This record gives sequence, structure tokens and C-alpha cells, in this order.
Amino acid sequence: MARVYNFSAGPAVLPEEVLTQARDELVDWRSSGMSVMEMSHRGKEFISIAEKAEADLRELLAIPASHKVLFLQGGATQQFAMVPMNLLRGKKSADYVNTGQWSKKAISEAKKLGAANVVATSEASNFTTVPAPGAWKLDPNAAYVHYTPNETIGGVEFHWIPDTGDVPLVADMSSTILSRPLDVARYGLIYAGAQKNIGPAGLTIVIVREDLIGGAAPGTPSMMDYRIHAENGSMYNTPPTYAWYIAGLVFEWLKRRGGLKAMAAVNERKAKKLYDYIDASGFYRNPVDPACRSWMNVPFTLADAALDEAFLKGAKGAGLVQLKGHRSVGGMRASIYNAMPEAGVDALIDYMKTFVKNKG
Amino acid sequence: MARVYNFSAGPAVLPEEVLTQARDELVDWRSSGMSVMEMSHRGKEFISIAEKAEADLRELLAIPASHKVLFLQGGATQQFAMVPMNLLRGKKSADYVNTGQWSKKAISEAKKLGAANVVATSEASNFTTVPAPGAWKLDPNAAYVHYTPNETIGGVEFHWIPDTGDVPLVADMSSTILSRPLDVARYGLIYAGAQKNIGPAGLTIVIVREDLIGGAAPGTPSMMDYRIHAENGSMYNTPPTYAWYIAGLVFEWLKRRGGLKAMAAVNERKAKKLYDYIDASGFYRNPVDPACRSWMNVPFTLADAALDEAFLKGAKGAGLVQLKGHRSVGGMRASIYNAMPEAGVDALIDYMKTFVKNKG
Repeated sequence: MARVYNFSAGPAVLPEEVLTQARDELVDWRSSGMSVMEMSHRGKEFISIAEKAEADLRELLAIPASHKVLFLQGGATQQFAMVPMNLLRGKKSADYVNTGQWSKKAISEAKKLGAANVVATSEASNFTTVPAPGAWKLDPNAAYVHYTPNETIGGVEFHWIPDTGDVPLVADMSSTILSRPLDVARYGLIYAGAQKNIGPAGLTIVIVREDLIGGAAPGTPSMMDYRIHAENGSMYNTPPTYAWYIAGLVFEWLKRRGGLKAMAAVNERKAKKLYDYIDASGFYRNPVDPACRSWMNVPFTLADAALDEAFLKGAKGAGLVQLKGHRSVGGMRASIYNAMPEAGVDALIDYMKTFVKNKG
Repeated sequence: MARVYNFSAGPAVLPEEVLTQARDELVDWRSSGMSVMEMSHRGKEFISIAEKAEADLRELLAIPASHKVLFLQGGATQQFAMVPMNLLRGKKSADYVNTGQWSKKAISEAKKLGAANVVATSEASNFTTVPAPGAWKLDPNAAYVHYTPNETIGGVEFHWIPDTGDVPLVADMSSTILSRPLDVARYGLIYAGAQKNIGPAGLTIVIVREDLIGGAAPGTPSMMDYRIHAENGSMYNTPPTYAWYIAGLVFEWLKRRGGLKAMAAVNERKAKKLYDYIDASGFYRNPVDPACRSWMNVPFTLADAALDEAFLKGAKGAGLVQLKGHRSVGGMRASIYNAMPEAGVDALIDYMKTFVKNKG
């Protein structure tokens, strides 16, 4: 079959150039006589791959020398626990902002391990907005402030960085990292599961300010301790080498595309044309406050939910897949990460128009 | 370059057939229009891959219905912590057998989280043997007994299964799983990092008896709780999908090769011819008691360590790579997992003979 436009929220579409390069190198990586999957993580071939990937990521995000980059496993879900295990450092509690389902998961995991105070929530708007800065009841003694810059399910995104003064800011950037330039210095810790904008599932990237490393509670398992990973260059044990390699190819692709400023322009344009069409259609609807609509995940409903199945079936026939909304909210969701070509968004809008004409 | 014989201890050689199949399917998996890396883990394509892999693994190892199979992340190192966190279940302590470096890591991690009693050790022999059954001072009230059936670094292997009565037996099988048939019913829990005999790094397989699931200590992070993974079919969060897929291809390859009985015959033969040559050479030496020599990892030294560099350089020229022994023990190590063809062992022995003739 021809390549489809895959709107999955994650694991998600990867750049076709990256996939063809990975295919061409799969059995024999650059005349090494072996696949990247077969390489010792301590051999010079893989070390060169790993170091290049980190250097490119640092360049793309302009990560300051004050911050370490870790290549870990376990996804954002493991970070929901690792953040409090490492960053509470004897403090009474941490502050959390609730903007939807991923925030809630982070809060619930943190509560298992200490005290998580919800200092702001957009629950009253059914998570169609984010809490205004003035509404955050921040505790100046909190260990850190945690928020979710982009809610993959609700399609709600912060287009500004919260000011938390001297309290370290922690962000789950799984579904927005690398979508635009980022002032990393404003953050104490950023984490992201790879399977949206970075690479294959099974890799998790953590960017952490060095002074926040080393405070893990006694009895913290080695794999949950940032210090152990940082001191061992993310190779305390065998890292997910092949996912790390693919991430490196994605970083090279982003650089060839012009870096994150260029990506931001494309991403903003892709999102705007989809939201503009939805708003003008009179048939589709996105419930999110226009000021905090996600560039990456665009949920929408049809005027008549009874048409959902027909919409999805027709979309599949047109080579547009994984448009079904998350089971908890229903409707549709188009995830349009970096690797979704603008032509994919155009094809989706064309299909949506045709569907209205025929069924609406 | 032509394909090399890769003797890495892990990540390690994969079957060439698996790699070429993965290459051919990389960009477009079976006319789905997408790569396996891009598939939603909850989509029907990936679910079919995941279920087939589990069914094939169950068939290969004849895993009884009493045992769940989990596809996790974090490697054996994460299991070193998860085992005590889940299996202590209020008991005072667990029993550990020390047969070398991987046992020691498991013990040290368990001691962080509870009491780990070393009930048998082969330290006195410098880990060139395993403790005889009569020498184990088992505690009948222990939560479980943990041992390492194959020590990847020392090259020491159990060729028998310990009898621990009613106390659950737990095994780190990272470097020996799938090398031969296994009586899974004798075990409470088996875990294995994938990067030796299963597939790419970043996947960890846990086989656990159902009655041992559900006893995690309060406050255990979700990702460390077997119950949460078991109840969600290893999809509580996004699993390492691509590694899971490659593991599935390896399982299909093992079935085509005739299953584990056929693999055992080949593995025993490969190991025997290498040990026989080493013992007869008068130049190379393996220090391990012949009764517990590993089929998978064969460490050996040269009569003169000053020749190590020349040996490695010549080997590389002959297409034999990753033969350097672990930094903690020096010398050489040939890891000859399932995917190492018998021709690779033959080529190694030929090279070793030539080296003796020219330099020895």
C-alpha cells in the first residue's frame, strides 16, 4: 500500500526520510558489518551514534551547559514517579497544575510518593483552557512546580512559560518537545516520552538542571535515580540503543529542515489551517479556547456523532488513519506532529470538506 | 563491509534472516502503509504483532497457563528492584545466591529495599563454579530465592534447576533464556533483558506466576508494580513497540529452526567445540569448572596477556569482533548466543589456531 497519513497520537508518524535511511542502514550500519541493534552500547560505533544524537539535540534546543541530557526508559509514566522521588529532597510538598488527563496521572503518581498540591486547575472549563497565571496559588516552599505544556488528549497547550520564581519548573513535554524553540534555562527539569516528536517508543529524554541531581530519597532504586544515570552517561545499564539511534536520525532531519524556528513556522501554519477550517465549517467543532489550542493534537467532533464511523471509514479509504479520538473523550483527533507533512493536513481538510458535502 | 561475526555480550548478534525481514518491512509493514515504529500500540496492527509474539514465546518455552508474560522496560537492572518491591510481601527477607557480578548487582539492589540474605556463594573459587545444592543455607520463611542461571561476565552457568521447595524461585535469565528448553513451572518468576537472546535492548521480558502478582508494597510506583502491567496486557503505558516486534521475529525464527530442543543441540555443540579447543590448545585457558561452563559466554585468556592487543587486532581483520573480555576481568570473551552461527564459532577457532601458530 502507498504510505498513509498517520494521525496517531503516539507512537506516531516518523519522517519518511528517516525511515528510508534506517531501512538502508538496518542490516549493515555504515560498513560496520552489523546492525545498530547488534552493537555493544560500549563499542566505539554506538558511542559515536549516542554522542552525535545528544550534541544535535543540544544544538536544536540550545540546551545550556547547566543542564544534563539523559536517555532513559519507561516513558512519561516512569517520570511521574522519578520526579518526586528525586526532586522532593526533604521538602514537604510539590505544586501541580491540572490541565487534563496527563496532568492527573502525574498528580496521582506523585501523591503515592509524597504530597502533591494542586495549585491551579482548568477542570471547571472541562479542560478547554489553561489556568491564567494570576490564578496559580503557588507555594514558595514547594520542592518544584509541575505542569503539562501540552495535553495530548484534550488538545490544550500552553503558549507561554509559567513564572515560578526560584521554585524549579518541571514539565512533561512528551507531545510538544521540538515543535518550536524553547528557553530550556527556564526549566529545572523537562521530560518527554520519545514516541511523538522524537523517535520510537521505549526511549525517554530527560533534561535536568545539574543542581537538581543527587537528592534522591534513600532506598530509591538505581534505575529511578537521576544521579546514577547522569554519572554514567545514561549507560548505567544497557540503554535502548536502537531507539536512541532513530532519535538521532530525527534530530539530523530536524537540522536539515532548518531547526526548530523553521519547524515552528510550519507547525503553526499546519495547526492554523486545520482550526480555521473546523471553525468555519459549521459541521466540525473544536471546544478549546483559541488562545490555548494545541499545535500538535487537534481534537474535533462532528455535528452528529452517529456519523463518526462513516467518517473514520471514509478517511481510511482516503489513506488517512488513526483519526479516532481518545476513548475517554470520543470524536476525532488529528495529531499533527513535526513528521506530519503539511500535505497530510491539506489532505485531511480536503477529506473533511468532501465528507460534509456528501453526508453533512 | 561483509557481515562480521559479532561476539558481543549484549546488545548482541541477531539472526541475519530477522534483520533482512525487518529491513524489508521497515518503511511499510505488510501493506499497512506505515512502519511498525509508527503504529499506535492500541491499533489492530500492533495488537496482532504483540499477541503473536507472546503466543510464540509461550509455545517455545511451553509456558504454563499459571504464568503471565509481561513485556516491560528497564532491563534486568530494573528487575533487581522490582522483584523485592513486589515479592517480599511483608516477609522479613529473601534468599540470594551469589555466583558473580550480576548476582552481586541483584543483591546490592535488593539490600536497598529490604533484607537480602546470601545463602550460598562461589566467591571462594573466584566464581569459577556454582555452589553445590547441599551448600545452600535456605531459609524456609524467605519470600523467594533469587539466583543467576548464567553469569554473562564469569561465563558460569547452572546446568540444573535448584530445588527450593515451596519458596518461589526467581531467576535472572538475561543471558541464557531460549538457549534450551526450560521447565518454567519450576519458577515463580523469570526475567530477562532482551538484548542477548531475544531482541533489541530496551525490552525486558518477565514470566511470573499469577499468585505472586499483586503484593507490591504501598507507595510502589505504577511502573514498578507487576499487577498494573499484568492487568493492562503490558500496555499500561506505551510499551517499546519496535523491540517487541523484533522479538516476535526472533521467536518466529526460533520456531523455524526447530524450537528450543534443536537450539540446545546446536548451542551445546558450539560451546563444546570451543571449550575443547581451548582446553587442548595449551595456549588459551578458560578457568571455569567444566561442569558449570556457560553455553552462551566463553571467557578465555591467552598464555601471555601482552599478546591481547595483537589477538584482538588480528581478529578484527578476520571479521571477528567484540572479543575483548569485560573490563573487570580482562582477557577475551566470546558470546555465542542463539544467533551466532556455528560457522562463526568455527571461524573463531580457526583464527585462534592461526594466531597460536604465528605468535604463540
